[in-house]
Amino acid sequence: MESSFIAWLRSVTPAHPALAIGPGDDAALLAVPGGSQLVVTTDLLTEGVDFLLAEHAPRRIGHKALAVNLSDLAAMAARPLAVVIAVALPQQNAAQIARELYAGILPLAARHGVAIAGGDTNTWAAGLVISITAFGTPGPRGPLRRGSAQPGDRLLATGAFGGSILGRHLDVEPRVAEALLLAERYELHAGIDVSDGLSLDASRLAAESGCGVSLDLARVPIAPAATQLAASDGRTPLDHALSDGEDFELLLAVPPGDAERIVREQPVGVPITDIGEFVAEPGLWQPTPSGRAPLAPRGYEH
Amino acid sequence: MESSFIAWLRSVTPAHPALAIGPGDDAALLAVPGGSQLVVTTDLLTEGVDFLLAEHAPRRIGHKALAVNLSDLAAMAARPLAVVIAVALPQQNAAQIARELYAGILPLAARHGVAIAGGDTNTWAAGLVISITAFGTPGPRGPLRRGSAQPGDRLLATGAFGGSILGRHLDVEPRVAEALLLAERYELHAGIDVSDGLSLDASRLAAESGCGVSLDLARVPIAPAATQLAASDGRTPLDHALSDGEDFELLLAVPPGDAERIVREQPVGVPITDIGEFVAEPGLWQPTPSGRAPLAPRGYEH
Repeated sequence: MESSFIAWLRSVTPAHPALAIGPGDDAALLAVPGGSQLVVTTDLLTEGVDFLLAEHAPRRIGHKALAVNLSDLAAMAARPLAVVIAVALPQQNAAQIARELYAGILPLAARHGVAIAGGDTNTWAAGLVISITAFGTPGPRGPLRRGSAQPGDRLLATGAFGGSILGRHLDVEPRVAEALLLAERYELHAGIDVSDGLSLDASRLAAESGCGVSLDLARVPIAPAATQLAASDGRTPLDHALSDGEDFELLLAVPPGDAERIVREQPVGVPITDIGEFVAEPGLWQPTPSGRAPLAPRGYEH
Repeated sequence: MESSFIAWLRSVTPAHPALAIGPGDDAALLAVPGGSQLVVTTDLLTEGVDFLLAEHAPRRIGHKALAVNLSDLAAMAARPLAVVIAVALPQQNAAQIARELYAGILPLAARHGVAIAGGDTNTWAAGLVISITAFGTPGPRGPLRRGSAQPGDRLLATGAFGGSILGRHLDVEPRVAEALLLAERYELHAGIDVSDGLSLDASRLAAESGCGVSLDLARVPIAPAATQLAASDGRTPLDHALSDGEDFELLLAVPPGDAERIVREQPVGVPITDIGEFVAEPGLWQPTPSGRAPLAPRGYEH
């Protein structure tokens, strides 16, 4: 949705004593009477925007719908607990589509130990919509915010970027276990998952923290799919990596000592790369021989 | 959704240690690490099924979308805490429609003290879909189940039934405060909210409890809208009251002594009527001079 609407919505959404972290982060943090804290996020996927029912097996669509929610929990370094699943199905083959959606959802839920706490399955005279709400609990060091990066922090990234449209945007592997392990063993200052494009989401992470970030373009890990796409459309692989979106990798702001340790130790299955540094001056930057130059954030603007 | 799909879904949804009450009740009950319990429910509304965007102001649609979720919490005698709101908007006038939806949501949320914990607002090339997930906390006597009615319990109903299609199905007043007060002051055995029709939902409440229920048809409170509708379509007002659905009133199974007290004391703003009794023999019944006769449950079968 356009940013003016989001700004309006944030302005009219009242503060609430139970809302420790409200709209604007990857997920909300709710203080539940009884003493627990709950991380909550919701993502709704629609036919023609997030998937094509004519081309993509419903199993992959179901997987994606759950995975993008788990990715939001990972961005908060939260442990997934449960989900509820609401679906609007086209009337034709409704039950068959629903079963296949769940054939994609259930294995991923099992792998992450997530309870299916309920759902609402409907049919109507239009396309497929799937809306999942996920709950998790913050790890022992609390939720990882967007707004706590500090100048001098390194910018670390899991995995590689670009070209997700060739298939990775459906077969998302949410970095849940990676986020939990990193948050437990190292000091992390802030985090976000890349849904709209590496350069755009990096600039958002910096902006929420009231600082800037300088991207070392030569070190951005480029996915094979970005190279493949570049070969056919004349853009560069780096261009795809910076702007394509739906990578669902993590960007983390990490103090230099811990960042160096993480990169050296490579403690999770997916590679972690140091791709830049947070700086005091707001904005997105790239290093130059004489200092740094502005870099335009690009990606999927809703 | 058809009952065979729901049965399949219940059969493939694994048990989970955090899931104290799983799919099949009005809402789920989740044990949150840290010691809290959370009641969770989700309802998704679609254009052409639950509302008509061409006829109904988005403000009323937003109100309904939140109200039906709060009604599910009321059916569990839970105190609303927070909601997340996911929307798929038609591209034309998307921002305007979204603002009006929220103009219906925000006052109702404020009235019930509900935090807006997040959302996901999207546009696409089809109709309006609104999916809300609501969380609440069980009252001091715990969540009110569907499966705990006992033979001999009275069947109490809030409000009046039938003809909601004339407008009440949009301007739903969820019986949240009523449920909380009744659960606090009286012994309630079981409860459900009427979404699909009084006779159908009463029979579901009995079936989940492994017993039957006998409806005293002469005492069913009939809404003025049911009488109005009957005048134009030749059906009886009672027929509408028994089968129309979307009343979002509460049906409660209450031991006779407390039921008598509730009806005498009328402790909440909306009238409460004794409309029948739970019986050992499964099924839906009506009393006859010689005993009782079967009554066919009717309502909205998904």
